[in-house]
Parts: sequence; structure tokens; C-alpha cells
Amino acid sequence: MKLYDSKTAPNPRRTRIFIAEKGLDIGSAIEVEQVDINALATRTPEFLKKNPMGRVPVLELDDGSHIAESIAICRYLEALHPDPPLFGTTPEEIARVEMWHQRVDYNLCERVFGCFQNTHDYMKDRMQQVPEFGEVCRAAAVEFMGVLDEQLGRARFIAGDRYTMADISALMAIDFGRVAKIRMPDDAKNLARWHEEVSARPSASA
Amino acid sequence: MKLYDSKTAPNPRRTRIFIAEKGLDIGSAIEVEQVDINALATRTPEFLKKNPMGRVPVLELDDGSHIAESIAICRYLEALHPDPPLFGTTPEEIARVEMWHQRVDYNLCERVFGCFQNTHDYMKDRMQQVPEFGEVCRAAAVEFMGVLDEQLGRARFIAGDRYTMADISALMAIDFGRVAKIRMPDDAKNLARWHEEVSARPSASA
Repeated sequence: MKLYDSKTAPNPRRTRIFIAEKGLDIGSAIEVEQVDINALATRTPEFLKKNPMGRVPVLELDDGSHIAESIAICRYLEALHPDPPLFGTTPEEIARVEMWHQRVDYNLCERVFGCFQNTHDYMKDRMQQVPEFGEVCRAAAVEFMGVLDEQLGRARFIAGDRYTMADISALMAIDFGRVAKIRMPDDAKNLARWHEEVSARPSASA
Repeated sequence: MKLYDSKTAPNPRRTRIFIAEKGLDIGSAIEVEQVDINALATRTPEFLKKNPMGRVPVLELDDGSHIAESIAICRYLEALHPDPPLFGTTPEEIARVEMWHQRVDYNLCERVFGCFQNTHDYMKDRMQQVPEFGEVCRAAAVEFMGVLDEQLGRARFIAGDRYTMADISALMAIDFGRVAKIRMPDDAKNLARWHEEVSARPSASA
């Protein structure tokens, strides 16, 4: 199989971290092709056949079909390679991982992206920016970091004792947040402890 | 178990439709309590112990623990009651359902909510509205309905031959869109055919 990837876009990093946590070897188990998003290479008629939404990552299967959306690719790989589990195994754990992942995705990832898209110069000619909404997003992202800080005072990782997809998405969002000048609050000591720990895993450099 | 629900909020409807599709009996298998979101009953200290995000739906398990987020509750019920499968079974189907669900959630549900929250009078005193962003959301939601219309020209349901979670979320978003005066484009004949079919299922009135 082949992963269409972009080292500069935030979403594909979720998939790369996931692949690294699964111990799958990028380059041998999964071939990788970099797509130049600056040159709008995801908007060509050829690429839109792979993903009509014009986004990376996209996973091309050996039968020529395609899976788009970073989380969908992760779930595909989880089904093929269940160990280590990153979406939970028991009904209760599956629910807890999904609950925290949904919270992280909506309140952090989407707010960080919303701030970046609506305030950053890079996006100026790429979409209709509403800077006021970008600032609403910035405040919401920082507020949610407080929720995460509280949770990480109770648990080692976001969804409990085990590293999961929720940690991957939160790490991606917090690191990408720097581009939009969104930073972790100084008093979020538990979040800082967690960020140091997950950043030290080899997968973080994927 | 007990479901904290609101008949007037859009997200809990996803969970109710899911429960109905599973053939689980609300009222006997799952006790239900209506929460008055107009009276901010999800923001009381007692409710925030169940869900710190202050939202419904929340599922209370018999051990007193709580699962929040509509999709997380659905995944919990899928793990307990696998038939009929609403998130796919084979790795390819799991990936396809998640891919379409992610697309629907981001490009339709979130855009419909974004339009409602930023333009509707009901939300005026409940959050900082940015009407210009609401209009960006409206246009994005309608544009994505075109993508769905194309897909529904190829397949009976959004993720293929089988009714899935992607259909549930899309139905919820399209129906709730009426509140924000977002309507299906007149020329979206496949989408209209699908909407008629999924609305005729008994679960749609859940």
C-alpha cells in the first residue's frame, strides 16, 4: 500500500505517528509519496480521483482503491494490526477513547485549525478568512487545554493508563498550534508533563 | 443504563436513531431522562460531574460511570450489540464508514452547527456570534451536499450498500439545518432520494 503524505500539513502527522506506534515500517510495509500542498497538488483532477475532498493523507490499497481522512486510515490499520491497540479493546475502553478523541478533535484540533485558517497569512489567498472567528477559536482551544490539564492530573494519558489515538490527535494539535501562536497555558503543569512524555516517544518525530 | 437526552438538541438524535436501528428498547433496555437545555440543566455542578463539557447526550452505566459524546455512546453500543453493524465489519468497510463519517461530520454537521450558532437568534446570548463565519459555514454545508449527491448517485447509502453511522449523522445534520435555513439544493436528486428513504425508516422518528 501507498500513503500520500505531506510533511508540512498537520493531519497527515496523526497517521504517521499512528503507523510508528504500530511498529509498521514506512518505506517498506507502506510506500510513501510526498504531495506538494503548496503547489495545490491535491487539487489536480488526478488527485481528486483519489480523494474528491482534495486533501492528504490518502492511503492507496493494492487493489487501487483509496481511503482518505487521517482517522479512517488509522482505523483501517488498527483493524489489520490490532496490537498495540490505539482505539481501545473492551466496550468501556473503546467508548472512553472515542469520548476523549471526539472532545480533542472538536475542542482542540478544530479550534487550532480554525484559528490558523482564519488568522494566518498563509491562508489569506486560500480561503475566505474571518479573523474574529479565528480569535474565538484561539480562546476555545486554550480553554480546552485547561480541561485536558485537569484530566491529566487524574490519568497518565488522555483516555486513561494507555497511550491512544486521543494522545496522537492532541499532540498534533498542540504542536501545530505554535504556527498560529497558540501555546499551552503556563499553569497547565499536568498538560506540560504529558506533552514532554508523549513528545519523547520515537513516534513523535514521525 | 440511563441516557441523559434532549429532544430539542441535534446531537442526541444521532444516539437515539442508533439505538432504534439496533433494536434496543428505549424505556426498558435503556432508561431515558430528558435534560432541559433551555434551562441550562447541563451546566449545573451535578451535571458537570457526569460530563465536564456540559453537553448531552450522556450515557450512565450501571457502575455509575459516564460516557459522553454521541458517537462514543454509539461505539459503546456497537461493541455490546454488534448486529446490525453500523460502523462496518471488515477492515475495508470499517475504513469506508469512518472516511464518510469524518467527511459528513466535518463538512456537514460542523458547518450546520457553525451556521446555527453564529447566525441564529437562539444563540445570541449564549455565545460570541460571528455572523460572517456563519455564512461561510452555510456555503460550505451546501457545497458538501453536492459531494454527497454525487456519492449517492453511485451508492444506495453514503458509505455503500449498507445503512451506517454516516447516514445517521447526515440525516441529523440535514434535518437540523432547516432551523438555520440550510436546505438541500434543488438539483441534488440523489440526495433527495436518499433523504426520503432514510427518513422513512422507523428509526428516523427517534
